[in-house]
Amino acid sequence: MEKISSNQCFGGWQQQFSHDSAVLDCRMRFAVYLPPQVAHGQRVPLLYWLSGLTCSDENFIHKAGAQRVAAELGIAIVVPDTSPRGAAVADDEAYDLGQGAGFYLNATQPPWARHYRMYDYVSQELPSLIAAYFPVNGRSAIAGHSMGGHGALICALKRPQDYVSVSAFSPIAHPVNALWGQKAFSAYLGDDQQTWREWDASLLMAAANVDAHRPCRVDIGLADGFLAAQLQPEALENAAAASGYPLQLHRHEGYDHSYYFIASLIEAQLRFHATQLFAMPG
Amino acid sequence: MEKISSNQCFGGWQQQFSHDSAVLDCRMRFAVYLPPQVAHGQRVPLLYWLSGLTCSDENFIHKAGAQRVAAELGIAIVVPDTSPRGAAVADDEAYDLGQGAGFYLNATQPPWARHYRMYDYVSQELPSLIAAYFPVNGRSAIAGHSMGGHGALICALKRPQDYVSVSAFSPIAHPVNALWGQKAFSAYLGDDQQTWREWDASLLMAAANVDAHRPCRVDIGLADGFLAAQLQPEALENAAAASGYPLQLHRHEGYDHSYYFIASLIEAQLRFHATQLFAMPG
Repeated sequence: MEKISSNQCFGGWQQQFSHDSAVLDCRMRFAVYLPPQVAHGQRVPLLYWLSGLTCSDENFIHKAGAQRVAAELGIAIVVPDTSPRGAAVADDEAYDLGQGAGFYLNATQPPWARHYRMYDYVSQELPSLIAAYFPVNGRSAIAGHSMGGHGALICALKRPQDYVSVSAFSPIAHPVNALWGQKAFSAYLGDDQQTWREWDASLLMAAANVDAHRPCRVDIGLADGFLAAQLQPEALENAAAASGYPLQLHRHEGYDHSYYFIASLIEAQLRFHATQLFAMPG
Repeated sequence: MEKISSNQCFGGWQQQFSHDSAVLDCRMRFAVYLPPQVAHGQRVPLLYWLSGLTCSDENFIHKAGAQRVAAELGIAIVVPDTSPRGAAVADDEAYDLGQGAGFYLNATQPPWARHYRMYDYVSQELPSLIAAYFPVNGRSAIAGHSMGGHGALICALKRPQDYVSVSAFSPIAHPVNALWGQKAFSAYLGDDQQTWREWDASLLMAAANVDAHRPCRVDIGLADGFLAAQLQPEALENAAAASGYPLQLHRHEGYDHSYYFIASLIEAQLRFHATQLFAMPG
């Protein structure tokens, strides 16, 4: 693991690292924000942030303004890239397939299957690396935007034992029923749509047992041009109603799909996670 | 004037516009943040932000997180570009000369003199446009980073009647004595170094009459790699001591020249300006 950068930020440290990922079979970069509390030897809880289409590990750390609140609360933030990367990694010219568009699943189809295992990477390999090298205390939450909102929801729904809470901005909530999801899933998973179902947050949430429920906050902007066709938050709302899943869905008039929306509401999501990350066990 | 974008942000609106600049003889883009208070018909005070080398109108609006505090306080923020732009505008391959590096002065030398009049643009043409089209109340402050910190200081020192306060992050405080300044000034102003003196914040501040004094806050990071050679805050400190100028210079251990430093301290600078922008007249 190599440290690429370290910048003082709100009394803590915004850092970037690269490492060889065994799961993805390529070199990967990720960002970590360490709050000031770690300087005093404290181990802190952790939020994973999964970014959207075309993003890298940098969009969130540059644009969301999350470090201010993370510093106050004493939460570390880990931001992986959105796909495997590199000249040897399969790619596509479209912005919504290939590099920058890994969709946080494990691909089964050529040419994607060799490298595109972002689900295993963000939910297992990266957490192991973080636990080994950073002063975290084992309590983790997960959040994301758009494709990353989809990613956060499926991680928390498939591995509830690993996360105390989950949130999303403008998630692709029902990808089997949306063009972005259908294009990615048919490429990465193939034509058998039965295999798609385990990567769809609405289908997973509708079937979630009560002991797998986690506090879940979703924020959407009503001026988001992708809302009706690609995001479909109503599907998630219906799924939560079906299984009694504790979903808090907040609709915001005037806000769109951009980082200006994330910046405006990230404090609310961080404070939502803090109530779980700092809850007394038991 | 054409509106390029408008995004809801912290209850207000982050917008971008383009217009034909007569002073610069080219099409220019600028950004405006309008706080939520303007929706109620209120006219608000204004902060100009001048950006550093290689920046456009976008770096600050994406990375500083200023909108949150501006929304709370009720301050508009106007962010011009850092130089004239376009295929017809003289340029240089270096990052520190030509497009993206206008240095907020009026060039006198070929090939720069025709378009490079950023001082007149940011201190006169742009304020006239803002006053005509936006709900501002006539009280303005000015701030900037690095090359833009130099720009903010010289604007406030040369036209104190137009600004109630001035601040800077990591300004190029004594450009006649630094390589960045010497390169730009010799290109834009020529070899007669007497002409450089009216664009140097430290020389202007040392000669500032008491009725031209304005509250002035400067923040510098002690881990800034440009500090000693290019920025030279001690020159500004000495100039303030010479003329009794009300300079507050804050040194911050561990912080560097990046936007992470700006994001960490922008709230302090905005609250500093607010005390002047909202002061009762008289």
